Amino acid sequence: MQVLDHTRTVPDFPRPGVSFRDLTPLLAHPDALRETIDCLAAPFRSEGITKVAGIEARGFVFGAPVAVALGAGFVPLRKPGKLPWSKESESYALEYGTDALEIHADGAVRTDRVLLIDDVLATGGTARAAIALVRRLGAVVVAAGFVLELEALGGRKKLPSDVRLEVLASVR
Amino acid sequence: MQVLDHTRTVPDFPRPGVSFRDLTPLLAHPDALRETIDCLAAPFRSEGITKVAGIEARGFVFGAPVAVALGAGFVPLRKPGKLPWSKESESYALEYGTDALEIHADGAVRTDRVLLIDDVLATGGTARAAIALVRRLGAVVVAAGFVLELEALGGRKKLPSDVRLEVLASVR
Repeated sequence: MQVLDHTRTVPDFPRPGVSFRDLTPLLAHPDALRETIDCLAAPFRSEGITKVAGIEARGFVFGAPVAVALGAGFVPLRKPGKLPWSKESESYALEYGTDALEIHADGAVRTDRVLLIDDVLATGGTARAAIALVRRLGAVVVAAGFVLELEALGGRKKLPSDVRLEVLASVR
Repeated sequence: MQVLDHTRTVPDFPRPGVSFRDLTPLLAHPDALRETIDCLAAPFRSEGITKVAGIEARGFVFGAPVAVALGAGFVPLRKPGKLPWSKESESYALEYGTDALEIHADGAVRTDRVLLIDDVLATGGTARAAIALVRRLGAVVVAAGFVLELEALGGRKKLPSDVRLEVLASVR
């Protein structure tokens, strides 16, 4: 899967000096989209995944089709205030300030084997918070899968060593 | 597909007096999720759909798997400021104030046949803006599909009469 062939680099987004890797051309391309979902799901077909957790909002786009492909359920990890029911919250540091992710209290249970999906692995702060959140409900986080890894940001080192990491493509 | 069997009604969310229809139990249930995606896609298998447009954020969860199921591309309709590249914007009225949706300028082209997907049809304001946005790029909006319709809010009447409407379940 040639992810980078379908990636658009947008300079100075979301702020000056940052080059944003835009995956919307990949989404718009039927074969690239289907192949991306197949490649994200493929390593986990024999892993007994019961839930795919997707991080709002781009992680929903990739995570939900992977859940369908694996015959698993989908659990959204959302920005604060979006989930209506009883929930758990996990904060994480941003470059300036903090943000948080939330999960419904019944979003995962002790018998669940969870695959975390997001579009891009950057600093790893969001993914680390997501893993902590799922674990707090007692579920096992088997692996984390990303379409694209931004190697220079070192996110890989932030993830727990017992969570398997799969990325479809990397840029420095 | 018994959508309502997998829907949780949460009182007083997002504000007092509103009963929120929470579809996360449906998402978490592997068979219900798969069947929901199948049912959303089924009416359009012979309609030559080239793009599925999903409305941020819950529309991403249903729209992306429907795109994969139909062999179409996926285009995200996002809240203001989230899309990095050249884009179009459409405002719509809320109960208090206004909001807007954005689409990348290359998110749809004149030859596209688009299926709009969102989780819930409520007042119809967001869906109407979404249809206007896709049409502004010259594409044909074939239909709009929703998991759940809240009939009492009358959203159905807000949608253009030449856009086919499909809903999997309705509540008054």
